[in-house]
Amino acid sequence: MSTAAVIIIGNEILSGKFSDENAPFLIARLRALGCDLGRIVVIPDDPQTIAHEVRACSAQFDHVFTTGGVGPTHDDVTIPSIALAFDVPVVRHPALEAILRRKLGDACNDAALRMAEVPDGAELWWDGEVRFPLVVMRNVAIFPGVPALLRLKFDAVAHRYQGVPILTARVWTLRTEPEIADALTDAARDWPGVAIGSYPRFELTPHKVLLTLESRDAEALDQCTQRVIEQVDGSREA
Amino acid sequence: MSTAAVIIIGNEILSGKFSDENAPFLIARLRALGCDLGRIVVIPDDPQTIAHEVRACSAQFDHVFTTGGVGPTHDDVTIPSIALAFDVPVVRHPALEAILRRKLGDACNDAALRMAEVPDGAELWWDGEVRFPLVVMRNVAIFPGVPALLRLKFDAVAHRYQGVPILTARVWTLRTEPEIADALTDAARDWPGVAIGSYPRFELTPHKVLLTLESRDAEALDQCTQRVIEQVDGSREA
Repeated sequence: MSTAAVIIIGNEILSGKFSDENAPFLIARLRALGCDLGRIVVIPDDPQTIAHEVRACSAQFDHVFTTGGVGPTHDDVTIPSIALAFDVPVVRHPALEAILRRKLGDACNDAALRMAEVPDGAELWWDGEVRFPLVVMRNVAIFPGVPALLRLKFDAVAHRYQGVPILTARVWTLRTEPEIADALTDAARDWPGVAIGSYPRFELTPHKVLLTLESRDAEALDQCTQRVIEQVDGSREA
Repeated sequence: MSTAAVIIIGNEILSGKFSDENAPFLIARLRALGCDLGRIVVIPDDPQTIAHEVRACSAQFDHVFTTGGVGPTHDDVTIPSIALAFDVPVVRHPALEAILRRKLGDACNDAALRMAEVPDGAELWWDGEVRFPLVVMRNVAIFPGVPALLRLKFDAVAHRYQGVPILTARVWTLRTEPEIADALTDAARDWPGVAIGSYPRFELTPHKVLLTLESRDAEALDQCTQRVIEQVDGSREA
């Protein structure tokens, strides 16, 4: 089992200029891969804030994914901020410089060459058919903010994050949360390897509560689900 | 000018069982109110994690909004976690207990009464036509996770967060980011009170770059926008 954090870097999300599409994409992909997402944070284009968050997440999670803030303009500060997080200098990577000079020709100015900069010690991952490799600093994979580009680059490297997917059972009950709370507390105690969530759906008539049970242990999941169904007079969703 | 952070508490978001609707709602509302949103974080139903995040955000921002984890079941840990953040006990609030007993009658069991618990020292805000007041601990307003309820409760108290809204200008250019990077760096330096964002839109043909300029100072915004338009050969969106 591996754990992950997602850091969305962008004033444009916090200010509502763009709605974030990257977190929903990464949530779904990480879930399918069996990688446990433990934190999503959206922060502004501020080097100290980014460095602080990257340092903390890198220490706490197996994998960290940043999105946004990579490019040639003044508001693209992700690379120097990640270098700051790990207390290393920013260096121009010869392989990236070569790609940019080949692609842009005479238009390859100093601003464009900022896209060849990486934190010192970063790796380049060339998986898949991508024209530009993924820059990875220790356990921090640095993705672009443009959703179509992020998807392309994530899917190229997704195989590196493959784990054991989580099994889920969904149970519906017409009882109220106060009525079933004790039964859920007991089940959560008896099967510590099963995570139980309780979600009242007030928008349904009659009101129902959706219970989700999740585990990587199929036998524990089935036993716990059976007990919960009996205790809350529930029915399992097919 | 006031600043805000949003803390989304919920395993169900991180695991993709539900997509979060509360962050987009709060982003739009805070923007319209003129309250500067500086951080959004999505964290699991874990008391230590919640307490740590609440303590940090409460110290750093003027206003903190939590969503989720309030209710009668074992996975509802927001109230004790916020108490932990401020190192105070959880107490049963008489006014909340009275509402629950009146509403639920004989069905008002110990689990239901968990919804009457607050961090010691919390205030109740009775604004608007809500049946149940908002619980606020210092600068932390504690909202439910159910989107329809959150909206109702937020709109009832929104007037307390009214500030001075930000003005925005949008400029489009056909030039590439490397070509315009220097001009933007200069403008950002000359008008420090104007925030300039640059967003390439590769999905448009021909490729365009959207520039956004934002400030609470109308004169500075107009001057800076005029300079940027000249420098990048841009056009201002009406």
